[in-house]
Amino acid sequence: MESKIRVGILGAAGFTGGELLRLLLRHPGVECIMAQSESQAGKAISSVHRDLLGELDAPFAATVDVDSIDLLFLCKGHGASRAFLNETTLPSKVRLIDLSMDFRWQPDQVTGELDFVYGLPELHKEKLVEAHRVANPGCFATAIQLALLPLAKAGCLKNTHLTGITGSTGAGQQWQDTLHFSWRANNISPYKSLTHQHLGEIQASLATLQSEVPPLYFIPWRGDFTRGIFVTAVTPYEGDLASAQDLFHTYYETAPFTHLSEQPIDLKQVLNTNKCLLHLEVEAGQLVVHSALDNLLKGAAGQAVQNMNLMFGMEETTGLQLKPQAF
Amino acid sequence: MESKIRVGILGAAGFTGGELLRLLLRHPGVECIMAQSESQAGKAISSVHRDLLGELDAPFAATVDVDSIDLLFLCKGHGASRAFLNETTLPSKVRLIDLSMDFRWQPDQVTGELDFVYGLPELHKEKLVEAHRVANPGCFATAIQLALLPLAKAGCLKNTHLTGITGSTGAGQQWQDTLHFSWRANNISPYKSLTHQHLGEIQASLATLQSEVPPLYFIPWRGDFTRGIFVTAVTPYEGDLASAQDLFHTYYETAPFTHLSEQPIDLKQVLNTNKCLLHLEVEAGQLVVHSALDNLLKGAAGQAVQNMNLMFGMEETTGLQLKPQAF
Amino acid sequence: MESKIRVGILGAAGFTGGELLRLLLRHPGVECIMAQSESQAGKAISSVHRDLLGELDAPFAATVDVDSIDLLFLCKGHGASRAFLNETTLPSKVRLIDLSMDFRWQPDQVTGELDFVYGLPELHKEKLVEAHRVANPGCFATAIQLALLPLAKAGCLKNTHLTGITGSTGAGQQWQDTLHFSWRANNISPYKSLTHQHLGEIQASLATLQSEVPPLYFIPWRGDFTRGIFVTAVTPYEGDLASAQDLFHTYYETAPFTHLSEQPIDLKQVLNTNKCLLHLEVEAGQLVVHSALDNLLKGAAGQAVQNMNLMFGMEETTGLQLKPQAF
Amino acid sequence: MESKIRVGILGAAGFTGGELLRLLLRHPGVECIMAQSESQAGKAISSVHRDLLGELDAPFAATVDVDSIDLLFLCKGHGASRAFLNETTLPSKVRLIDLSMDFRWQPDQVTGELDFVYGLPELHKEKLVEAHRVANPGCFATAIQLALLPLAKAGCLKNTHLTGITGSTGAGQQWQDTLHFSWRANNISPYKSLTHQHLGEIQASLATLQSEVPPLYFIPWRGDFTRGIFVTAVTPYEGDLASAQDLFHTYYETAPFTHLSEQPIDLKQVLNTNKCLLHLEVEAGQLVVHSALDNLLKGAAGQAVQNMNLMFGMEETTGLQLKPQAF
Repeated sequence: MESKIRVGILGAAGFTGGELLRLLLRHPGVECIMAQSESQAGKAISSVHRDLLGELDAPFAATVDVDSIDLLFLCKGHGASRAFLNETTLPSKVRLIDLSMDFRWQPDQVTGELDFVYGLPELHKEKLVEAHRVANPGCFATAIQLALLPLAKAGCLKNTHLTGITGSTGAGQQWQDTLHFSWRANNISPYKSLTHQHLGEIQASLATLQSEVPPLYFIPWRGDFTRGIFVTAVTPYEGDLASAQDLFHTYYETAPFTHLSEQPIDLKQVLNTNKCLLHLEVEAGQLVVHSALDNLLKGAAGQAVQNMNLMFGMEETTGLQLKPQAF
Repeated sequence: MESKIRVGILGAAGFTGGELLRLLLRHPGVECIMAQSESQAGKAISSVHRDLLGELDAPFAATVDVDSIDLLFLCKGHGASRAFLNETTLPSKVRLIDLSMDFRWQPDQVTGELDFVYGLPELHKEKLVEAHRVANPGCFATAIQLALLPLAKAGCLKNTHLTGITGSTGAGQQWQDTLHFSWRANNISPYKSLTHQHLGEIQASLATLQSEVPPLYFIPWRGDFTRGIFVTAVTPYEGDLASAQDLFHTYYETAPFTHLSEQPIDLKQVLNTNKCLLHLEVEAGQLVVHSALDNLLKGAAGQAVQNMNLMFGMEETTGLQLKPQAF
Repeated sequence: MESKIRVGILGAAGFTGGELLRLLLRHPGVECIMAQSESQAGKAISSVHRDLLGELDAPFAATVDVDSIDLLFLCKGHGASRAFLNETTLPSKVRLIDLSMDFRWQPDQVTGELDFVYGLPELHKEKLVEAHRVANPGCFATAIQLALLPLAKAGCLKNTHLTGITGSTGAGQQWQDTLHFSWRANNISPYKSLTHQHLGEIQASLATLQSEVPPLYFIPWRGDFTRGIFVTAVTPYEGDLASAQDLFHTYYETAPFTHLSEQPIDLKQVLNTNKCLLHLEVEAGQLVVHSALDNLLKGAAGQAVQNMNLMFGMEETTGLQLKPQAF
Repeated sequence: MESKIRVGILGAAGFTGGELLRLLLRHPGVECIMAQSESQAGKAISSVHRDLLGELDAPFAATVDVDSIDLLFLCKGHGASRAFLNETTLPSKVRLIDLSMDFRWQPDQVTGELDFVYGLPELHKEKLVEAHRVANPGCFATAIQLALLPLAKAGCLKNTHLTGITGSTGAGQQWQDTLHFSWRANNISPYKSLTHQHLGEIQASLATLQSEVPPLYFIPWRGDFTRGIFVTAVTPYEGDLASAQDLFHTYYETAPFTHLSEQPIDLKQVLNTNKCLLHLEVEAGQLVVHSALDNLLKGAAGQAVQNMNLMFGMEETTGLQLKPQAF
């Protein structure tokens, strides 16, 4: 490990900003965290992220002094990252991890030069080791890509139907009708059928492995829980179960957080961890891939720290071997 | 039964207004319902109370024609009922049931002349049969009074400690931080310790039965569920369990919705019903009274319909023999 | 309406038996209910179905006197209905509604003579009016058929991918690891991918409308709620949204409980009702059909009562216009 | 820190055993863990504690070789610890932490010689540093003692009324009707009113600080969540809020996990942490103390590790600075 790094977080009062704070606070390779929030500047961090009471009672800063940091995390809303970078000149030594969708791959940029490296270690860890700017993937995008990458790598990904369900924290902190407890408790509701905004980055990523990306039909649902994403993919597959398991085992051989489970999986196995668990079944000429992760960790802040570890030459799992919630 | 009655609801787009609509829609003694909402006027009722899709697709009215109704329900916010009545002259034949706290008993009015009859049938059904204006009790107030009235009637109510937990619908529809699903799910939180606003009406009611009302120490908690109230009261008691059960059985002999359970009770037994269930235990010189009801029914709209039934000479249970939710 | 009918329920202590009791108890066309349970005989009904306290405190019977009833509901487990009928001779006048899967259509019986009429009113109400024995459909089977029947009727149903999520009551009362609260709360888990046992009856039913039934790929999930089923179907479709809506509106013109919603739907709209709500979207050459119902009502006991109403010449909706749970 | 320690866990397949494994696995002072389970011997640990997949796939052992360990955790059921110690001779160097209630203080042992030190660091850390055998406190007992100890220390604890609510994991893994998801979801239910088994150890502990322990009236409720305990205590108090806060601040000055919050507290602030948060209010001559902790951590396995740290001369917080769950 190099010497410890100093980080800034812009937008540290939001849900992903808070989760990042929870991680970095305990990260042995980080020595200083500047937590910025426009709306909460001056208030104690633990008055917003109230689970940090007794741990992080310092106030949010109004600005981050970019000259004194090594790495800047952008946890502002979608659109705000691009706006910030347009109006700000960062010192060249400051590296950047953006958690918004502003700089993730878009369908029309697949072959272009990208300023940002797409931050999915399971796709191209070698690029992240050298990256200066990283666009951290979306939560559904991560769960779906990890379910499909080994098939794309083998060139055998066909038309795929996906259903995914997400916890309420995926929708953030801002008030929306669909976040009213009286409505959401015990409820299931679909949204953005076949048009979810993460499809672009998924297709761009798959296209680096399989030249022709087949149609992906994705149905997202809102779930009645706070944390986690569960996705099931169904795709035609000509081999048997063992051959599919081989593809996945080989692909994820060196991935420390993505595991193929022999047993059926459920969402709670991954909560408060940086893991993505996968389980395969073959029936009636179809491969069924189940994929589960914690949307705030492997789907956001955990993956961002994983990327930070890679960018700064630390062990990939540093600070991410978390005690699971389990229940 | 007299001929069917015509009712108006002011504030029909809120939670209690909606629950009232669900009940009155199926009530055999009601022939016409005028549902008013300022904010939703012109929109289909079923676009707001979406469970009524296919049943009540007519629009909310902007006003209620008070000349064409027999009974007006006020489901506006606290304070708004008083304001409405100050600026409106109702035809003398129009009776009124107010679901706000504006006209419930206050400690300093116990002995005064009240324009409104307090709408708790278990306290004085005979007054409600002749009432022209009724102030419908609060949800916690109902659960607590039904737990204590038999003791006050017997003149043996002493210092009482109460803890109660309420579902989120008790806080209504308006956005508050404590209604964010990501915060409230799986959470418990206290509020208004020893100072809950329902204590006034509870004390006023008890004072009609026992001249000296002892101190009531009430701790309310917010629960992580949508419907229901559960209260446990602990009070010194000199008799045995059988004597306490006798007091309760006698007191509730003619109450069609309030039952003493021999077995321990739980909250879900009463959901989607107009019941209040009670269970008694005696330990260490203390009487423990558990009380459960559905805050939107026996704690609000159901009790309002029970009052309507009494005021209009209908069978007290008409339209209120609801299929329980059970699960 | 004919004179009131007398009914027996075998297996009245289970979840569907209990829900049937909740309905029949309030049904104006039923005058006597004999509730049988082997395991609970002699115990108060309200000691098992505890929400019925104060309403149904009589004991379960050990047997049903089949000579004194007009209709027998079988709520015993799968397999037990067939066993019971093998060893019992019912008086010829006693009609039968079986809530198990023992006599539902099987793929190899589509063209044969069936002793039992399949109890889906939306498929063939005219047959149910004359039926003597009815096999009540499964819960997922109902939600899925109601999503697909109009397409099959139009002969345009193609390969269909379905994901469904079910509440815990669908798994009944018997202890299973997947019913442990500590595991199931906030959890999502898949089961029986592409092999769910309801696919047989769905295909048999569709085959009566469209000679060639396309493959159905169905992924069921266990949800972290107690009541309800939500299904989303995706199927290639060549027309526009209006044409699809026309198909559904026409097909369900006379269905009192199945409604096409213009607005997006969510699971809680149907809880504690006998409704099935449907919502359609067209994207990228695909028709998306969302379908929601209460698994214990339209998916079990409610549909059984709807069938009873039809069999006995009562209005189809009698006793089923339930106050929704809403929250 | 001394050299790393080797630990054995008897009963490692249960809920507290699993939580202990999750902690010890990441504990920098532990070098070897022998996880024993009678019922699961030979099965992969991660097949039982499924969140550990990819981390702890070794099998449970049938026995623990007590000659090769420094510390034995007993996570067997109540009664089984005593039975085990009766029939087993442990090497004298092996220290012991028992998580059952078998050796916790009992009312009649307050003044006697105890083989076991009661494992509440906030009561007598200095004794735990030298302890050879520790009886780890109960979860409700910890939450209640931490709410009352400063008052007992000041000799001003009076008659106290307490209500507490517990998550389902407090009831363990063994099947009980009250753990059926269909019953427990969205439900609240009381149990053991005024007779909870933890009252004994609470009184014994208070008696070491205040010679006359006043009556404690404790009402426990079952909550509809999996993790956590929330308790509110109400007790007569003659001072003002500031004086009470002083008592608590002084008492917990050196406690690394027990914090007095200026702001109101809620249960989720402490989940997946070893913290206990307290909040005080003074109203009407009463002091209200709210207390929240995670029943599996500060209420069981976390506190056991805290005790281990003290017993073996490690920093008290080692391995316990956990990332909170927050949502």
